[in-house]
Amino acid sequence: MESSLLGYSRGDASAKTFQAVNPENGQTLPANYAMVSEEEVEEACRLADQAAPIIAQFKGPRKAEFLRALADGIDGVVGDLVPMMSAETGLPEPRVRGETGRTCGQLRMFAKLVETGSWVDARIDRAQPNREPLPKPDLRAMLRPIGPVAVFCASNFPLAFSVAGGDSASAWAAGCPVVVKAHHAHPGTALLIGQVVVNTLKQCDWPEGAFSLLFGEGRTVGQSLVKNSRIKAVGFTGSRAGGRALFDLANGREEPIPVFAEMSSVNPIFVLPGMGEGRIEEFTAGLMGSATLGVGQFCTNPGIVFHPSGEFGDQFISAYVEKMKSVNALPMLHQGICDSYAKGILSLSSCDGVNVEYQFKTENNAQGSYAGPCVLSASVDDFMKDSSMMDEVFGPSTLLVSYHSADQLLDVISKMEGQLTATVFGENEDLTTHGSFLEHLELKAGRLLFNQFPTGVEVCEAVVHGGPYPATTDGRSTSVGTGAILRFVRPVCYQGFPDEWLPEELREGNPLGVNRSEG
Amino acid sequence: MESSLLGYSRGDASAKTFQAVNPENGQTLPANYAMVSEEEVEEACRLADQAAPIIAQFKGPRKAEFLRALADGIDGVVGDLVPMMSAETGLPEPRVRGETGRTCGQLRMFAKLVETGSWVDARIDRAQPNREPLPKPDLRAMLRPIGPVAVFCASNFPLAFSVAGGDSASAWAAGCPVVVKAHHAHPGTALLIGQVVVNTLKQCDWPEGAFSLLFGEGRTVGQSLVKNSRIKAVGFTGSRAGGRALFDLANGREEPIPVFAEMSSVNPIFVLPGMGEGRIEEFTAGLMGSATLGVGQFCTNPGIVFHPSGEFGDQFISAYVEKMKSVNALPMLHQGICDSYAKGILSLSSCDGVNVEYQFKTENNAQGSYAGPCVLSASVDDFMKDSSMMDEVFGPSTLLVSYHSADQLLDVISKMEGQLTATVFGENEDLTTHGSFLEHLELKAGRLLFNQFPTGVEVCEAVVHGGPYPATTDGRSTSVGTGAILRFVRPVCYQGFPDEWLPEELREGNPLGVNRSEG
Repeated sequence: MESSLLGYSRGDASAKTFQAVNPENGQTLPANYAMVSEEEVEEACRLADQAAPIIAQFKGPRKAEFLRALADGIDGVVGDLVPMMSAETGLPEPRVRGETGRTCGQLRMFAKLVETGSWVDARIDRAQPNREPLPKPDLRAMLRPIGPVAVFCASNFPLAFSVAGGDSASAWAAGCPVVVKAHHAHPGTALLIGQVVVNTLKQCDWPEGAFSLLFGEGRTVGQSLVKNSRIKAVGFTGSRAGGRALFDLANGREEPIPVFAEMSSVNPIFVLPGMGEGRIEEFTAGLMGSATLGVGQFCTNPGIVFHPSGEFGDQFISAYVEKMKSVNALPMLHQGICDSYAKGILSLSSCDGVNVEYQFKTENNAQGSYAGPCVLSASVDDFMKDSSMMDEVFGPSTLLVSYHSADQLLDVISKMEGQLTATVFGENEDLTTHGSFLEHLELKAGRLLFNQFPTGVEVCEAVVHGGPYPATTDGRSTSVGTGAILRFVRPVCYQGFPDEWLPEELREGNPLGVNRSEG
Repeated sequence: MESSLLGYSRGDASAKTFQAVNPENGQTLPANYAMVSEEEVEEACRLADQAAPIIAQFKGPRKAEFLRALADGIDGVVGDLVPMMSAETGLPEPRVRGETGRTCGQLRMFAKLVETGSWVDARIDRAQPNREPLPKPDLRAMLRPIGPVAVFCASNFPLAFSVAGGDSASAWAAGCPVVVKAHHAHPGTALLIGQVVVNTLKQCDWPEGAFSLLFGEGRTVGQSLVKNSRIKAVGFTGSRAGGRALFDLANGREEPIPVFAEMSSVNPIFVLPGMGEGRIEEFTAGLMGSATLGVGQFCTNPGIVFHPSGEFGDQFISAYVEKMKSVNALPMLHQGICDSYAKGILSLSSCDGVNVEYQFKTENNAQGSYAGPCVLSASVDDFMKDSSMMDEVFGPSTLLVSYHSADQLLDVISKMEGQLTATVFGENEDLTTHGSFLEHLELKAGRLLFNQFPTGVEVCEAVVHGGPYPATTDGRSTSVGTGAILRFVRPVCYQGFPDEWLPEELREGNPLGVNRSEG
């Protein structure tokens, strides 16, 4: 019997339990996980609150030491992660190893960021005691941690967006304690990582409240956590309904708190007229790879492609269908996602004007949560009549929408909801011809791509994994890359402070050598 | 009859009207202002939506030209502003001229900011086509405008936080259209400035949708504006109830939008034991000046002072009362504020353990909205028993709270709500002795001061005028200083873009010479 991690203690193991299911064969996995109680949620938040002012004072190198030790620790258990995570998620060994690498890479990226320290947006206005008509005081400001952060594990990234994933890494890097809610589909993976976190905290002499890991019902535990007055921000990756529910809860609090929920996106691709038939082969191969990667279970999966009608369109559709026919069914992450995918295709294919060009048939007697690709088509005129065609179908399906004139795309964009990504395929001349197209497009997406596919998000300085609602609940943020740290900080100004009481980043002589802007 | 400004057109002047009142004598001012209709609100938002992608493409120098021309234009009407604003607000000529200077200074500060352009947080990750196992794409990101912003004029800053105040200036600087809701107490001042804005837009060849000014009922017009799907962010300075109502509306939208409401703060001052009786004279003089400046109608007015009890406390209270007795009653901005002030004092003085040390008596037969100073006292033990003592009383009153031991202040801080400012008076040694005090304090306020008073907010690079709820609805923001522009932008990433299609800030060779971080 396993139970929650409440700082350095364990939760009550005699509570009601749950088990994970292997999506490859539908069989229940042996381990039992005890659900956390209301009191235990409160205890995790109390510990986090106690740890908050302590961690907030940790300097960059101390935070970097912890993040690097954690990455090393996770690297060290990859041999245990492979069988556990594969059994819980159906993801193959190379993906588990790849995602482990990404997770550790993220932790090391944030270690480097906080070690160099220039991310804090240091601002200096020196005193001018002789200024007329009034003297100018000395003001210095920088970004400081927001306090305890609640993190929800994502089903589709059991490592990179879960216990020690991007949300937690950026919160720790900012100097915030983290209380993690495990995902019900991969509790064993969460616990393996959680134990590494606890060991690393002890090794680095951090306060235990810097981390707790809670097992339990998403709805009840999630609600208790987000409503707890000690929690000061929320990180979430998941469904639109789930993210919005947390957002509404957080904003209904007496003290509202920011919720950074990354929720849903159809990641439209716009094929402009300049692309030409000569590129269809290469394009459809790339599209197939992007749309079916990880059984289509990526937030940046391209769900809708707008393409010229006529000869180009006919060739494109049949070439794409041929490519998708080569893709086999594979297990999705859990039965819930698999059911939603089937429902999404059914709903899309019942829209007026939508044709099913190809749909993989799964055996009726198949075990496990298998799903295969699907290709649907429609005209832009029908698309514009039914906004439900814009709903995300999470899985390896693509809706191909043909247009007559590129001018129609401006109407599409103006009707389009916020997106994580929007992609343009074409020639440079297309951008000259359709310049205002880009100007409108950038109001609707966090990342714009030219002649590249949106999956395979690069974790780096310049990436933006965010976008206007409903892509996220806060389009002013990114949940991937170094910019993710900016979600969990707030500016604090120190006026008239003696130099020795200022944070080092703001002291005279700039002892840390960080970038500073001077007023 | 005056009416709203809808881009370059005027609203219907035949609608229901309202008039302003002179708070010095309670007399209704002659001009009539027609209330805006639902359709006119929609029209203002439609114009703003049309202008959004156009203004978003304006380069720094073009935005700077407009902001500077606007500052010059406002400087040019100061002769008209003095009688109009004094009549509408009771504020004396030096304040009108001073606030005009601040307003124009803000516009010029943002002009300089966008001209130099380094504020955009440019981030560059260059392609690494030969990276193993996968090539790295080229990614470049910067901050881009969020879209049309609704701005609510503040009663206590008819210029600096109104039509062309800090919210509008930072929104325009970001590249966002602005729809302003005028405050009912100073419509004439708003219209004078609004006409300068319209003339400047024409002069600089900006689209008319960059600005509208709406007259009407705060509740109904404010609601229509915040609920309009074309509005993408809200700036507000005012009461806690008003700000929270807008926040709730904005978050209840199908597409929620950020609300930056600066609402309420008691701006506590902590006098630490080291200060000594020798500084009482200077401190009480400064406190009196800060607490009664502008009839106490500043967001950063220090409402509560915690001080050592005993001999020091007795001397301090009597010295402060003496100082406050020298302050005369003056007209507050409008009758509503005056009534709330009286109600606030009544409520505070009825709390268990609160003594009224001094209260200015206004004549019963006085005309106008006059109010005078008030000094109340309590012990920290009683203070901790009644959280209503922490409620803001907007006006020239101060609550003096005595403590026995500085350790009690940690309890005070942990119970305290979010604040715009928190101030410490003492000697450097106090900070050494009470170090963890500062660590806890910075979790609760946007600006910390040492041996200085919180009023007289410096408009500069490093200032933070913000703080955790309820000081603002978004503690991650400031509404004063160059950082205010960050409220109305979102990061956008360009992946694989041809150089000539990138914004200039992100191009190879860095033609604008802006600060960039490279990954």
